[in-house]
Amino acid sequence: MVSTPSFADLRRFFAPRRVALVGATEDLSKFGGRCLRQMLDFGFAGEVFPVNPNRGTVFGRPCFPSLAALPAVPDHVGIVLPAARCAAAIAECGRLGVPFATVFSAGFAETGAPAAAALQAELAAAARAAGVRFMGPNCNGLVDYIAGFAMTSTATVAGPRRPAGDIGVVSQSGGAGQVNVMWRAQELGLGISRQVSSGNDADLDMCDYMAFLVEDPHTRVVLAIAERAPDGTRLRAVAARAAALGKPIVMVKVGRTEAGRSAAASHTGAVTGADAVFDAALRQLGILRVEDAHELYETAMLLRQGRRPAGRRAAALSISGGNLVLLADLGAARGIEFPDYAEETRAALRRLVPGFVGVRNPTDMSAGAIGQKDIFAAAARAIAEDPAVDALIPVITFAPAADIRPIAALAAASPKPMPILWTGRCSDDPALTPAALIAEGHAVYRDALPCVAALRRAMQYGEFLARRAGAEAPRRPEGADRDAALRLLRGAGGATLSEAASKAVAACYGLAPPREALAATAEEAVAAAASLGGPVALKVQSPDIPHKTEAGAVRLGVSGEAAVREGHAAVLAAARAHAPSARIEGVLVQEMVAGGVEMLLGATRDAHFGPVLTVGFGGVHVEILRDVAFRLPPITAEEARGMLEELRLFPLLLGPRGRPRADLPALCDAIARFSWLAHDLGPHVAEVDINPLVVLPEGRGARMLDALILRSTPDAP
Amino acid sequence: MVSTPSFADLRRFFAPRRVALVGATEDLSKFGGRCLRQMLDFGFAGEVFPVNPNRGTVFGRPCFPSLAALPAVPDHVGIVLPAARCAAAIAECGRLGVPFATVFSAGFAETGAPAAAALQAELAAAARAAGVRFMGPNCNGLVDYIAGFAMTSTATVAGPRRPAGDIGVVSQSGGAGQVNVMWRAQELGLGISRQVSSGNDADLDMCDYMAFLVEDPHTRVVLAIAERAPDGTRLRAVAARAAALGKPIVMVKVGRTEAGRSAAASHTGAVTGADAVFDAALRQLGILRVEDAHELYETAMLLRQGRRPAGRRAAALSISGGNLVLLADLGAARGIEFPDYAEETRAALRRLVPGFVGVRNPTDMSAGAIGQKDIFAAAARAIAEDPAVDALIPVITFAPAADIRPIAALAAASPKPMPILWTGRCSDDPALTPAALIAEGHAVYRDALPCVAALRRAMQYGEFLARRAGAEAPRRPEGADRDAALRLLRGAGGATLSEAASKAVAACYGLAPPREALAATAEEAVAAAASLGGPVALKVQSPDIPHKTEAGAVRLGVSGEAAVREGHAAVLAAARAHAPSARIEGVLVQEMVAGGVEMLLGATRDAHFGPVLTVGFGGVHVEILRDVAFRLPPITAEEARGMLEELRLFPLLLGPRGRPRADLPALCDAIARFSWLAHDLGPHVAEVDINPLVVLPEGRGARMLDALILRSTPDAP
Repeated sequence: MVSTPSFADLRRFFAPRRVALVGATEDLSKFGGRCLRQMLDFGFAGEVFPVNPNRGTVFGRPCFPSLAALPAVPDHVGIVLPAARCAAAIAECGRLGVPFATVFSAGFAETGAPAAAALQAELAAAARAAGVRFMGPNCNGLVDYIAGFAMTSTATVAGPRRPAGDIGVVSQSGGAGQVNVMWRAQELGLGISRQVSSGNDADLDMCDYMAFLVEDPHTRVVLAIAERAPDGTRLRAVAARAAALGKPIVMVKVGRTEAGRSAAASHTGAVTGADAVFDAALRQLGILRVEDAHELYETAMLLRQGRRPAGRRAAALSISGGNLVLLADLGAARGIEFPDYAEETRAALRRLVPGFVGVRNPTDMSAGAIGQKDIFAAAARAIAEDPAVDALIPVITFAPAADIRPIAALAAASPKPMPILWTGRCSDDPALTPAALIAEGHAVYRDALPCVAALRRAMQYGEFLARRAGAEAPRRPEGADRDAALRLLRGAGGATLSEAASKAVAACYGLAPPREALAATAEEAVAAAASLGGPVALKVQSPDIPHKTEAGAVRLGVSGEAAVREGHAAVLAAARAHAPSARIEGVLVQEMVAGGVEMLLGATRDAHFGPVLTVGFGGVHVEILRDVAFRLPPITAEEARGMLEELRLFPLLLGPRGRPRADLPALCDAIARFSWLAHDLGPHVAEVDINPLVVLPEGRGARMLDALILRSTPDAP
Repeated sequence: MVSTPSFADLRRFFAPRRVALVGATEDLSKFGGRCLRQMLDFGFAGEVFPVNPNRGTVFGRPCFPSLAALPAVPDHVGIVLPAARCAAAIAECGRLGVPFATVFSAGFAETGAPAAAALQAELAAAARAAGVRFMGPNCNGLVDYIAGFAMTSTATVAGPRRPAGDIGVVSQSGGAGQVNVMWRAQELGLGISRQVSSGNDADLDMCDYMAFLVEDPHTRVVLAIAERAPDGTRLRAVAARAAALGKPIVMVKVGRTEAGRSAAASHTGAVTGADAVFDAALRQLGILRVEDAHELYETAMLLRQGRRPAGRRAAALSISGGNLVLLADLGAARGIEFPDYAEETRAALRRLVPGFVGVRNPTDMSAGAIGQKDIFAAAARAIAEDPAVDALIPVITFAPAADIRPIAALAAASPKPMPILWTGRCSDDPALTPAALIAEGHAVYRDALPCVAALRRAMQYGEFLARRAGAEAPRRPEGADRDAALRLLRGAGGATLSEAASKAVAACYGLAPPREALAATAEEAVAAAASLGGPVALKVQSPDIPHKTEAGAVRLGVSGEAAVREGHAAVLAAARAHAPSARIEGVLVQEMVAGGVEMLLGATRDAHFGPVLTVGFGGVHVEILRDVAFRLPPITAEEARGMLEELRLFPLLLGPRGRPRADLPALCDAIARFSWLAHDLGPHVAEVDINPLVVLPEGRGARMLDALILRSTPDAP
């Protein structure tokens, strides 16, 4: 079905031995001038070949009239030419055996003009024909602190080269990725390994760069700003590899709102996928999503230390009680727990501070710690050793270096995450700053909110890795018969399947309908009702009437022979009135199922990820609340339980107000089975709805009361 | 009922002519030493009298053995003494005619120890007896940049005195208020007018300081961090005055979560009120609530300019497309609109940049603005003049001073709010920094998220002021009869009123029951049912059975004489079985009301604000979702509509999925009437529930199907 994605080997792209820049100049008001000047100033150790037919030398270096005139084949060629001439330059690269290019020039798909989009397609075609992989167009290049190579016009790399670090950065935009993330992270004391701003992604795409950084031993955290949604299949593959290596990816994905999408469209010429689905997919894949650029490096600051919290339980310690209440309040609102300490810890704290009776978490040392320099760090050590604590936040306001240094030393040695909240400054050593501690490897936050936000994300990542380690892979459920389902689907003919036909397909995956029978005649309907016993539902069956209720072709709670006969006639009449030429398969006679909770199971196709599974409650409340959960299928019953727990109305299933508890195992099993249906039939269906699936009280199972399948057109073979 | 709150005149508290410090010393390891040193270094221009019986001079100044020995009466006395000696010092202040004191000493209610709490009560009593107003105990004093007076130990005021500004800061905690807010705001380039960290608030409280800052002509925005909820009545009075002056208050209120509350309790020895009610009250009072300390000054940075956005419509302009998409996305997610420009604006932009066809909002100047310095500011000017734009955000990454200066000049002259998003730095003038622009009066944000958050809050404040200007004050509704309601309430006797008695009280405010009659006998029940026609509900009435349904003493949909007779007997039997000694008033025979939306109207008493009005939907969904809105009564029907619109399920009232639209005017009228009931009966009732109030389709009104009043005990006269 889907081929395994492959990613470019970008070693020589990031770390070329020889580089050429087509469009080199000394004029710093021009892109080619700034780009070359910065490449030289950055201290690139390999050979640099300026290319420009109009100049003999550039910045004192020999300049070559063409790529063909170069003395050796570059590993990477930068292209700064009018848009219309870029394809020819790429073709020339191919002729010479150049493996990589970066096309800086704008004037392509980002303009929204059809002619410019065609130019981009031509460029991509030329590269494919030439066997050249390229970044761009409309991009601002890359900065590699590991290889000491920069090819970009950004002013953020001007001045002495910053030290290399362990954070990789990928963005389409230059401004957002290079200024808001790279430069700002460096200002904060963090180091970058490699950075790309990839522009229009006409050939190499975000996933290629992310895949390279995931494998890169110098990079410990990968940050990405996606203005366009990356290809879903490729992103899944990158995320799977990152999860296997335990290397976190943190992402800003723009396009949550219409305004953002419209701005993104104008900027990138691309359409973003439905955001709620993207959001759910990222969570499922273990990619941490944040809102704004600064949250990327704030999160990376803690994650790059590689210590994964074992749970959500934190402790905090300060001499500023006001900061502790803020921290605990903001942390708890985000799901961080502040448990009581073990008795051993409390005893240790009481030994440290005689008379410190009310030992609590968060721990306010205000009275005890005054004028006793070592007590704070000793208390932090005791708390960090508490088995009930997964992470410790020491809080500093204004303090002398003699107080701050022991805390930093403790944090450096701690196997548990120990983000430091430092809202003030060092009172006696101007060189001891948050940036200095960060440059040493510490995670230092200036405010409670970013501190607890980063810690919560680290906890989420720890939970993801633990879940992944403990989870079984989804296994095709017992009795699921893909071939039979496909046969039924193909046999149905037409775009829509009737309820009965749809249920027959779903039944191939073990989803249970209520007791029911399809009646061709009134006599058969009467007989079916009699055999079911009790009141029945009567529903017309036609591939041409997908919405029976709206057509008036449904009767509920029909009892007795006369009423069944009358109802049978009525639903047929309503169907004919609604759609005179509809093909009628018959009337479904169905037992009335009472006393359950109505759920909705859906499968749709997402533009980026393909089949998507939706689960929610039935009914009008839910339509208004949009209280639904999404997953990429297939999933296990355990994952299905996770979906249900995401729903705000989840407690409805637990038997609120003395109602019976719903059969959760049966519901989870049904969702897992349905997820395989969604997975298997994905390419062949546009939409599958089981609505409602009635979940009966504990031990009594779940029944699909209605189902609807819309085939994709044209149906794939 | 409630007396109008009064606030202390704190002019001489903040700006004393003469100050004494009891417990003065030269020892900087002691609080009294640091506090005096900083007072002198801060450059206080008035007289300073150190008081300490053990020293002749302190820092070269004569030191006095006691307050009684001073050569003149100080306006403000700082007290640094052991807790047990503070009350005597306050008493001495009173004897000498000192109007104000600040008690820095700890060891009072904040410890949680009963003896220490008693000491605090003693201190407050001594002050009342002596006629002295004091701040503290357990506080860190004040810093007044207008008066040039600091009496505090905080290291944040060390060094040259910062320039005075226009932002006032009130907090209980020293660390949070002085470090996280005051010092950090100053580091950012903002100026502070006056700051207090008020500790335990045993006498003067947060509202006194806030009221002073609200009236203070030097203060343009008041910031507050409340670890304890301030007194509700006093806060209402402060907020009303602030609203009348158009002076915004921004507040962090800790205690949203249990963890925060528990930490706050340990820190302050006080209990915080129910957070959701507090949150709603702040919104109603026009106080802007933020989560973390830094958001206080980030919000103040824009608000202090005094330009109030007329609406939610913003524009943004940049040469960094990536920043624009982020900004628009984050802004739109918070309710900021980015409308299309007027045709005139588009034409002006096209004139500025020939070939700039796709003029959109946000406006990406990337292609057009390169190398043309004046274009960016000219485009910003054209956009700022667009009548469809309420605020403009120019976005800068790296730029030369020649580009940045014109934008700043435009922002300074603009009558519309113009927050600047500046993610990078000035590329050619190291002195031109965000802090430099902020010190000049600009609002400069480094990231999109705080920028849109501050702008959204400024918009909310503008909306509040506009609503306030246009709103009528709540008027007692026609026919509301408080005296009759109180008579019924008093006459009822006992803690709980039956449904019929409760409805009778509510009916005094014009709330309509369905057609119903109280039947003493089966015969009366049959007659009542016959006269109502159609099926009826039968409900036992007893002040001793507040929950009739749980007691099994309700029958619904009863039709026909025999069934009514049988039902009447059955509900009486169930009531007797449930509560053998219950006083039975009879059986309520009520028409069945179908086809409406069930709402819940409630009145409860909040510890801080007194009567609180609650509105939500009825039913189990809502119990799980906690989808309710709160207001302090009384309110108008228009405000009631605002409450309804806050509910997530509000669309249920608009007739979703072809259902009839509910009678919203009748519902709003009923809520307004009920709010007067809550207001008037507030001191006399613990709880009033109308549940459900059934809202019928348009034009058909609303009926209270059930009601329950719990009287407060003991009942106030």
